[in-house]
Amino acid sequence: MNEPWKDLLSIGAKNIKTSPIREMVKLIRQPGMISFAGGMPDPAIFPVDQFYECAEILREKGTDVLQYGATDGYAPLKEFLAGWTGTRMGRKVLTDEILITSGSIQVVDLLNLALIDREDYIIIEEPTFMGTTANMLNQGANFLSISCDENGMEVDKLPGIIEKARSEGKKIKYIYTIPNFQNPLGCTMTLERRKKLIEVAHRYDLVILEDDPYGYVRFDGEHEPTLFSLDERGIVLYAGSFSKILAPGTRVGWCTGPAALIKLMQGFKQGVDVSTSVVSQALVSEYCRKGYLESFLPKIIGHYRRKRDAMEEGFRKYLPLEKVKYVTPQGGFFYWIETPDISTKALFDRAIKKKVVFVPGDAFYPGGGPDRNFRVCYTFASSEDIDEGIRRLAEAMAELL
Amino acid sequence: MNEPWKDLLSIGAKNIKTSPIREMVKLIRQPGMISFAGGMPDPAIFPVDQFYECAEILREKGTDVLQYGATDGYAPLKEFLAGWTGTRMGRKVLTDEILITSGSIQVVDLLNLALIDREDYIIIEEPTFMGTTANMLNQGANFLSISCDENGMEVDKLPGIIEKARSEGKKIKYIYTIPNFQNPLGCTMTLERRKKLIEVAHRYDLVILEDDPYGYVRFDGEHEPTLFSLDERGIVLYAGSFSKILAPGTRVGWCTGPAALIKLMQGFKQGVDVSTSVVSQALVSEYCRKGYLESFLPKIIGHYRRKRDAMEEGFRKYLPLEKVKYVTPQGGFFYWIETPDISTKALFDRAIKKKVVFVPGDAFYPGGGPDRNFRVCYTFASSEDIDEGIRRLAEAMAELL
Repeated sequence: MNEPWKDLLSIGAKNIKTSPIREMVKLIRQPGMISFAGGMPDPAIFPVDQFYECAEILREKGTDVLQYGATDGYAPLKEFLAGWTGTRMGRKVLTDEILITSGSIQVVDLLNLALIDREDYIIIEEPTFMGTTANMLNQGANFLSISCDENGMEVDKLPGIIEKARSEGKKIKYIYTIPNFQNPLGCTMTLERRKKLIEVAHRYDLVILEDDPYGYVRFDGEHEPTLFSLDERGIVLYAGSFSKILAPGTRVGWCTGPAALIKLMQGFKQGVDVSTSVVSQALVSEYCRKGYLESFLPKIIGHYRRKRDAMEEGFRKYLPLEKVKYVTPQGGFFYWIETPDISTKALFDRAIKKKVVFVPGDAFYPGGGPDRNFRVCYTFASSEDIDEGIRRLAEAMAELL
Repeated sequence: MNEPWKDLLSIGAKNIKTSPIREMVKLIRQPGMISFAGGMPDPAIFPVDQFYECAEILREKGTDVLQYGATDGYAPLKEFLAGWTGTRMGRKVLTDEILITSGSIQVVDLLNLALIDREDYIIIEEPTFMGTTANMLNQGANFLSISCDENGMEVDKLPGIIEKARSEGKKIKYIYTIPNFQNPLGCTMTLERRKKLIEVAHRYDLVILEDDPYGYVRFDGEHEPTLFSLDERGIVLYAGSFSKILAPGTRVGWCTGPAALIKLMQGFKQGVDVSTSVVSQALVSEYCRKGYLESFLPKIIGHYRRKRDAMEEGFRKYLPLEKVKYVTPQGGFFYWIETPDISTKALFDRAIKKKVVFVPGDAFYPGGGPDRNFRVCYTFASSEDIDEGIRRLAEAMAELL
């Protein structure tokens, strides 16, 4: 068939970036495959019965829940979040400062609509989550990247990067960071760097998008204050998600920021999806209202801590420790493994044959990156599979060393 | 508070278009207000118990439904649609030709990402639904408009409009139409014009977006064939929705089109919201699988037919018929009332005071339009309220004549 519409494609479509992880889904579903690839929660820990119990709201408030909902979100859920997130936000936030979104990735979409014109620049940590950079690229953004070490974004490098870019006439709109248990690196930004980041953003009049899907899933140590709580000028937009602390199938996330920016993003949301599924929001809201979110969170944290430990034990048992480098994440979903000279693409091909799958590191560099690091997720596989999967991975690695 | 991000706004944000209907929500919710404004289904007809019954799937398949879902949609729902829509589509479509979306408005969002660069042109019927034109505007599109009469889009004018625009160097990407029970006009495109429209789109190599949220809600006469079914070259993207035939709170819609275009849009959807709420999709899917969609549709159609008749009876009882013009819609949600010289903005202010609300017509012209027509929706208010509301409206009108 001829496809006449192919001559009508947008610039974005001609350069579309799709997620290699989403493309891996078929691989992941192969029988016997152990997946360390997608950042997926363990289905064994989904609170299925409690969530089903919340479906009662579909009967009790059916006529509300089935009708068009407010674009800014289901009011009871907004009220819950305004209070519940207060501790991390540094204060009880106002409902006008919250927008419920269709997953936290929609926060990126709406912020890009609000700030990004084609050819504008976003400063990103590199490597970083390809789901969000795909949205940025698809909306025409360019990137300036900043490296990270075990203490998070190397904030000291920011002024130099910004000044150089500005001297070249580049328009920078915002800084994108995943400060807690960064994806894919697993590192967490220190308090000192957080303060410095806020200071730099203030000095150069930039917005910060603080993407924090893993923030509540901390295994060790104390929570660092959010960037939102450290900012007194209203330049931080905080993005939260129920995907990792409840269930990604709900597609419910939120953002918290200056009321006028929230209102602008809400304006864009009208034309994007009118509102997030009211059905989903009502179920999530009931789940929170009944206290299940609070009571399950320690269970989730304990469960994933044990899996992280199982994976690290696997590393110690099977990996050639003198040849790999990793930092133990204090929370979240991922280890980032650095190897001296193994091609992770070659490793990937061998691993697949041994029925274990991970994500080669260059996928996290929007412009392509080094081929010697990779990300492994410990949340999805069972503890036994984690041990066996690392064993297989080590076997594949041995063939290349 | 100073708002430093305000200096960083995108061109789209500086010119953002939001929906006047969404802004009216507070008015609509005033006690005693009779609303003919938003195109909202009657909550009294929502199948609350049947939908709740479907929640059983949250328990039975909880671990699937709560997990990340496929970007192209929940497989059982896609399979249902591939079969069920076959009659209207002219053939059983393939699941690769279907993308489940977060409401049918997301079809517009994704198609714009695929085709529209800032300054490109879309041909729209004028007046037309402002929700979709808002998305188009927010993505930087310009419009060429084509008028409608009681037989739908005046297709004969298309070649002239296209050739003139092309001679001026304008890039036209697609034609947007609501062929059935157009919003706001209520008119339906004749078969002859449908064939002509396809022929013109083929001749000028343009895509057609066939937006059909009301298509299944036909009161009188026979269904006209869809544009999709008349097209042999793969240039029509058909958008469907569960909002009017089940419940808008689900935010589940779909589109059917050439597999390669669907795949491209799916690529954009990854970065927009990963997938539509799997929870919502699973509930809708169960509802369909159990046969409720089929068994409720005649009930919905009968219910809204009676409401349409109640409204037209109200027109005959109360309105100065020699001074207003309307066409009886064969389906859908709306009447479009044309007046010779009443300012509908003035009418709106008086109507509000009498506790009845409608949408002034100029809201449906993206660049502003005449101030003498308006849209009334008959689906939301009860039959008694329809009578009383038209009486109040006539009273307000009398004050201006």
